[in-house]
Amino acid sequence: MILSDLGEVKLIKKIREWVDFKDKKIILPIGDDVAAFKVDSQKYLILTTDSFVEGTHFDLSYTSFFQVGYHSLAASLSDIASSGGLPLYAFVSLGLFPSLEVKSIEEIYRGMLSLCEKFKLKIIGGDTTFSEKLFLSLAIVGEVEPKCLRKRSEAENGDLVLVTGELGKAAAGLSILQNPSIKGLIRNREELIKAHLEPFPRIHEGRTASQMGAKAMEDISDGLASELIHIARESKVGIEIEENKIPLAPGVSEVAIGCGKKPLDLAFYGGEDYELVFTSSPKKALEIKKEIEEREGTRVSIIGRVVEREGVFLLSEEGKRTPLHYGYDHFKKLSW
Amino acid sequence: MILSDLGEVKLIKKIREWVDFKDKKIILPIGDDVAAFKVDSQKYLILTTDSFVEGTHFDLSYTSFFQVGYHSLAASLSDIASSGGLPLYAFVSLGLFPSLEVKSIEEIYRGMLSLCEKFKLKIIGGDTTFSEKLFLSLAIVGEVEPKCLRKRSEAENGDLVLVTGELGKAAAGLSILQNPSIKGLIRNREELIKAHLEPFPRIHEGRTASQMGAKAMEDISDGLASELIHIARESKVGIEIEENKIPLAPGVSEVAIGCGKKPLDLAFYGGEDYELVFTSSPKKALEIKKEIEEREGTRVSIIGRVVEREGVFLLSEEGKRTPLHYGYDHFKKLSW
Repeated sequence: MILSDLGEVKLIKKIREWVDFKDKKIILPIGDDVAAFKVDSQKYLILTTDSFVEGTHFDLSYTSFFQVGYHSLAASLSDIASSGGLPLYAFVSLGLFPSLEVKSIEEIYRGMLSLCEKFKLKIIGGDTTFSEKLFLSLAIVGEVEPKCLRKRSEAENGDLVLVTGELGKAAAGLSILQNPSIKGLIRNREELIKAHLEPFPRIHEGRTASQMGAKAMEDISDGLASELIHIARESKVGIEIEENKIPLAPGVSEVAIGCGKKPLDLAFYGGEDYELVFTSSPKKALEIKKEIEEREGTRVSIIGRVVEREGVFLLSEEGKRTPLHYGYDHFKKLSW
Repeated sequence: MILSDLGEVKLIKKIREWVDFKDKKIILPIGDDVAAFKVDSQKYLILTTDSFVEGTHFDLSYTSFFQVGYHSLAASLSDIASSGGLPLYAFVSLGLFPSLEVKSIEEIYRGMLSLCEKFKLKIIGGDTTFSEKLFLSLAIVGEVEPKCLRKRSEAENGDLVLVTGELGKAAAGLSILQNPSIKGLIRNREELIKAHLEPFPRIHEGRTASQMGAKAMEDISDGLASELIHIARESKVGIEIEENKIPLAPGVSEVAIGCGKKPLDLAFYGGEDYELVFTSSPKKALEIKKEIEEREGTRVSIIGRVVEREGVFLLSEEGKRTPLHYGYDHFKKLSW
């Protein structure tokens, strides 16, 4: 069988079987966004690795080198945010080609360093190697208190489902960049493009949510639908999302219509919105929402609830239930 | 200026300037084979990242997928060995293409897992992404006691220079694979090929040396010459190597002559011998050599000494001094 027949989700399941290690120091093994392991009784160390490849993750025809560095690090930091932890150190492994301008490599670093400053993160290692296509592989080490470490598997029946920020904006921004013919009147045009090229990771929001008692938490970098399915499966629950509660960003509808897509699909299946989705008891949900909105100025929306019945469904205002499915697969054709 | 004009060594120097961070918890920042940072008073955590790209680091026409996994992890573990530490956890970021057989991906993991077993290392995280060329980016977390952490900068005038194993074998093995026309009588042919495809990292030897008082230590994955130059520069000393003390592996001379190269050049500039070079006071040098040879069965050779006068030189039996220079540069043409 070849990889495109298997797909990414089943590949990761297979990898988990192949490397089935048991160790009492390993708190969170392969599968979640980060791995966590114990170094002393106060803190867990968390680590996430991600690769960003020219042509797959970024297109140099409309992305500056600064943005390549910035976006790659933002995506990695979003994994740290989703664990409830704080980033400490970054390791940058670069694949470079000989005709690349040294100035461009410096710009990649400048992009990363501008985010490092915001989160007191330090780049302390890495390596460089030859590659025909530019790539960055980032490893981020962070830390989290045991009680704050969030996992996919902790959603409980009766929880509310919350999401930070506004959705669909990165997918809409990408659509504008890829289809310059969508001209017309698009509200928020520059903001949408910026949301794709320079997303801001929700480290502070993730910390606040985890410290105040959020349960399952994930970033929605692969689209909201995939992450809800992950949470539901790992927590052995179902999730119902209310269609009219999804906080679509201004302009997303116009872009979707301009491209012949459904507006909500950009939120559910578009990906690269580095927002957080999490569950919490109804009482705490309101407190967390208020605290994040007041402290960080980031909108938080209650979009649905955790139910006993398995599956992840979208409820229309008329009460119609539509199942949500996986969105993007790196190794298959796009399914939306 | 483009990268091929600058070269790898100067690029890394520039990166060190760009990310010039000061932090008292960072023990060993960018530049050495590993980065080290403090997590508690007993131990430092060490971390190394490396990428391995199809066409640059491995050639699938003569390398099995098992060997791709094995070799990549061995190379990363060699960086841990050179620090004097022990590996704990591995994170595997894979760039894969959709037509790849799932069985081949499993073989890559089997190759890594066979080394994991030998060193009690656990793969606990990673990710997969689309790439036209296969690549692996590995991050290895390890630990080391503060007194055992070895750096490049600790060689002292009067030290002896020691090297583990026999040299030139990986470069000779690669030459055989790349030039099947070198037929003739080559001693040790299969061993040389295996040294290239399935090198064994010197974790135990590195531990013994560091525990017994070795000073500067490095692995010689980029060739012995580059590493001696790094040690001399960072320690602000000179190094003299005696030509007739270099432990060339059996068969290396025949391969070199068959390819029109000088035998010693395969040791100095060939690279991918995952052996360790280290310095030590003369008294301890003999004890370390004896202990490693007895405990691990790995040959250790005293090949030269650290001197006050700057520069790295090869001394012939007749007393002729030849300066050694950098070997392989990923971004320039090979210089030998």
